Amino acid sequence: MFGTLLKTLRAQNPLIHCITNYVTANDCANLLLACGARPIMADDPGEVEEITALAAGLVLNIGTLHQQTLPAMEAAGRRAKALGHPVVLDPVGAGASALRSSAALRLLEQVRPTLIRGNASELKALARGSGSTQGVDAAAADRVTPENLDQMAAFVKALAARTGAVVAMTGAIDLVSDAEKTWCIYNGRPEMGRVTGTGCQLSALAGAFLAASPDTPLEAAAAAVCAMGLCGEIAHSRMGPLDGNATYRTYIIDAMDRLAPDTLEQGARYEMR
Amino acid sequence: MFGTLLKTLRAQNPLIHCITNYVTANDCANLLLACGARPIMADDPGEVEEITALAAGLVLNIGTLHQQTLPAMEAAGRRAKALGHPVVLDPVGAGASALRSSAALRLLEQVRPTLIRGNASELKALARGSGSTQGVDAAAADRVTPENLDQMAAFVKALAARTGAVVAMTGAIDLVSDAEKTWCIYNGRPEMGRVTGTGCQLSALAGAFLAASPDTPLEAAAAAVCAMGLCGEIAHSRMGPLDGNATYRTYIIDAMDRLAPDTLEQGARYEMR
Amino acid sequence: MFGTLLKTLRAQNPLIHCITNYVTANDCANLLLACGARPIMADDPGEVEEITALAAGLVLNIGTLHQQTLPAMEAAGRRAKALGHPVVLDPVGAGASALRSSAALRLLEQVRPTLIRGNASELKALARGSGSTQGVDAAAADRVTPENLDQMAAFVKALAARTGAVVAMTGAIDLVSDAEKTWCIYNGRPEMGRVTGTGCQLSALAGAFLAASPDTPLEAAAAAVCAMGLCGEIAHSRMGPLDGNATYRTYIIDAMDRLAPDTLEQGARYEMR
Repeated sequence: MFGTLLKTLRAQNPLIHCITNYVTANDCANLLLACGARPIMADDPGEVEEITALAAGLVLNIGTLHQQTLPAMEAAGRRAKALGHPVVLDPVGAGASALRSSAALRLLEQVRPTLIRGNASELKALARGSGSTQGVDAAAADRVTPENLDQMAAFVKALAARTGAVVAMTGAIDLVSDAEKTWCIYNGRPEMGRVTGTGCQLSALAGAFLAASPDTPLEAAAAAVCAMGLCGEIAHSRMGPLDGNATYRTYIIDAMDRLAPDTLEQGARYEMR
Repeated sequence: MFGTLLKTLRAQNPLIHCITNYVTANDCANLLLACGARPIMADDPGEVEEITALAAGLVLNIGTLHQQTLPAMEAAGRRAKALGHPVVLDPVGAGASALRSSAALRLLEQVRPTLIRGNASELKALARGSGSTQGVDAAAADRVTPENLDQMAAFVKALAARTGAVVAMTGAIDLVSDAEKTWCIYNGRPEMGRVTGTGCQLSALAGAFLAASPDTPLEAAAAAVCAMGLCGEIAHSRMGPLDGNATYRTYIIDAMDRLAPDTLEQGARYEMR
Repeated sequence: MFGTLLKTLRAQNPLIHCITNYVTANDCANLLLACGARPIMADDPGEVEEITALAAGLVLNIGTLHQQTLPAMEAAGRRAKALGHPVVLDPVGAGASALRSSAALRLLEQVRPTLIRGNASELKALARGSGSTQGVDAAAADRVTPENLDQMAAFVKALAARTGAVVAMTGAIDLVSDAEKTWCIYNGRPEMGRVTGTGCQLSALAGAFLAASPDTPLEAAAAAVCAMGLCGEIAHSRMGPLDGNATYRTYIIDAMDRLAPDTLEQGARYEMR
C-alpha cells in the first residue's frame, strides 16, 4: 500500500505550501523535490491565502515562530481547510515558551489541522495546554520505549480523538493514529536526531503524501513516517568511516530522491494496534 | 570570451549584495564564493543603502518576499543604480500572488534593473502585469522547446526592449537578450530543477559576472547562464548510483569552485539569433 | 586540556540558544549537534527570555540583523547574563553599516558578552566605535600575519581589558585573550574562508564550549578555536580533485561530528603570549 501511495505522490507532483522556519527551509524544499512534490515557501500575510489556494497541501511549522507570522499561518490554514487541502501542523518546541505553546494551541483550534506531527514532549505540551520541553528535542522522560508503548499509543489515540486530527508522534518508535487505528512504526535510526530538521522534513513529506492521497490521511501519514525512517536507514548504510552528520543529512535526502515504491513497500516495518 | 569574463570575475572578487530569500541564501552565498565573488546578505531598510554602496553589484530576489522588505529592495536598487552598479532582479514566483506580481513590477519600474532573470512563467507574468504561475517553477505550457524557440526568443527580445534590461529566460533552453542580440544557450541538465535554488544561484552568479564586467552586461549574463548550466553538467557526470538531488546540489557548487576559464570557454554551447 | 573540555561538552549536551542570521543557521545547528550540543534558534521578542532561560548558553550573531531583532538580542543577552549563562557576541559585518556598528556596540554595552568572536576588521570597528569593513570578511590591511602578530595581540588584549570579555580574533592566525593571557592559535586552513559561515559556526561552537565549561571561558574559547581549525584541516585532507567549497562545508561539520578528544588534544597548535 505504501508503495502505491508513493507512486501516486510521484504521479501528482503536488505543490506544497510551507510556512516554516529559516533553519531547515532549504532541506524541506530539497526533500519535497526528492519525494516528487514541489515546494513553495511563502509567509507574508499579504499572499499566503493566494499561495495556498494554488497549492495542494499546507505545512505549518513554528520552528522559528515570529508573532507577525502567526496570523499568516491562521489565514493560510483556514483557507486551505476551506478548500479541502490537507494541513500539517508541526508544533516545533511547543512547551518551550508560552509563545510557542499558545501559537500551537491557537493553530490547533483555528485551523483544525489534518495531521499533527511532533515529538512526545511537543504533543504532551499540546495535550496539557502547557509543558516543559527541553529545547526542540523530546525530553528523556518522554522517549517512546517498548515499555511505555501501550501508554504512549493510548495518549496519541486520545489526542487524535480530541483534535479530530491524525496524530504522528515520532521518536525511537513512531506512533500514528486517527483515534481508531494506531500504527507503530519501527523504521529510522537514532542518528537522525543528530541532523537538524529531520522532523521538519518529515512534516513536509507528510504534507506531500497527504496532498497526493487526501482521502486516506492516516495511511498517507504512516507512509511518510515509514519513508522518512527508511531513508534514514538507507542513508546510514552508505556512511563511511569519516562521514558524520552533515554527510548523513545529504544522504537522507538522496535516499528519498532514489526511493523506489517497491523498496518502501518492502522496507516499511510496522504493526497495527 | 566567456573564459575571459570568468578570469575577470576571479581577479576582481566583487562584493555582491543580496536581498534574497531564506530558503536558498546559504547556497547563493557558497555559489558566490565558488565563482570568486564575496557575498553579503543584508535586508534591513536601515542599512541596505550603505551596504550596497560598499558592494559592486546587487541581487534582488523575491523568493520569500515580505512586505517590509520591499522598500529596502527599492532603496537599495535605486542607490545601486545611482552608483552605476549592476542590479539583477529575480522575480521568483511572479504571477503566483498579487503581492509578488506587484512587487516585481514595482521593482522593474522603480529600480530599472540591469538584468531580469526568471523562468518563462515569471517573465510572462511581468510582461502581462499579471499571470498564473504554478508555484515557483515554469508552468508546462511555458516550457521553451525547439518548436516554440522563435516565438520565445521574440518574447524575450521584446521584454528587453520594453524594460531596457537584459532579460534571461531560463529553462530547457535558455534565452538571453538585450533587444538587439539574443543568445540561445544549451548548457544545463533537467535534473537541476530537482535542486531547490538553482535559479536563485544563477541570479546571484549573474550579479557577480555583471559586477566584474559592467560594460558588457549581455555577455556577462550569457556567461553566467553558460557557467551555471555547465556546472550542472559537470556535477551530473560525478553522480553515483546512490546519489540524489542533495549530492547534486553539493556537486554543482563544487563544480563552480573548480571551473577553469578554459573549461567554460570550451564547454559553453550556444548560438546567436 | 582541550580534550577534556571536549569530553565535558559531549557529556553535558548543553542546549545553546542562537539568535542568528538566516544564511548560516542550518550549518550552525548541524555544527552544534556535531560537537555534542543541542541548538535552539528563536528570535521573537515574545519568547527569547524564556528560551534562553531553558538553555545553557546564548549566541548573538548580527549577520542578517533586523532592527526589530535587536531588542530581542538585548533582552535575551541580559537574561542569560543574569542567569550566569555565557553569552557569545559575533559582530558580523560590524563597520559595514552604521546599523551593524551601533548594534554591536549596543550589545557590547547592554549585554557585556562573555566572549566576542570576530575577524580583525569587525573587532577594530568595535574598538573604534566605527570602521570600514569590506563586507563580512576582514579587509586585507587587517590580516593577522607573523609580522604584525605582536601588535594584533596587544590590540586583542586591550579590547579584552576594556570590554571585560574574552576576545577571539580569527584569521590566518587566531588570537584569544582575556586581558591576562593570550593564545596564538595556528590551526585552520585558508580554504575555510571560501565556505560561508565558518565564522558563525565557530561562534556557535564557542557558545557550546563555554556553556559546558563556564568557569574557564578563556580555555573554552581557545578550545573551540582549535577544534574548528583542526576540523578544517581534517576536512581538507579528505578532499578529492573534484571537490570544492560545498563538499568542504559538509566535511568540516563531519569532522566535528567525528572529532575524538585525543585528536583535539594532539592536533591543537598554539602558543601562549
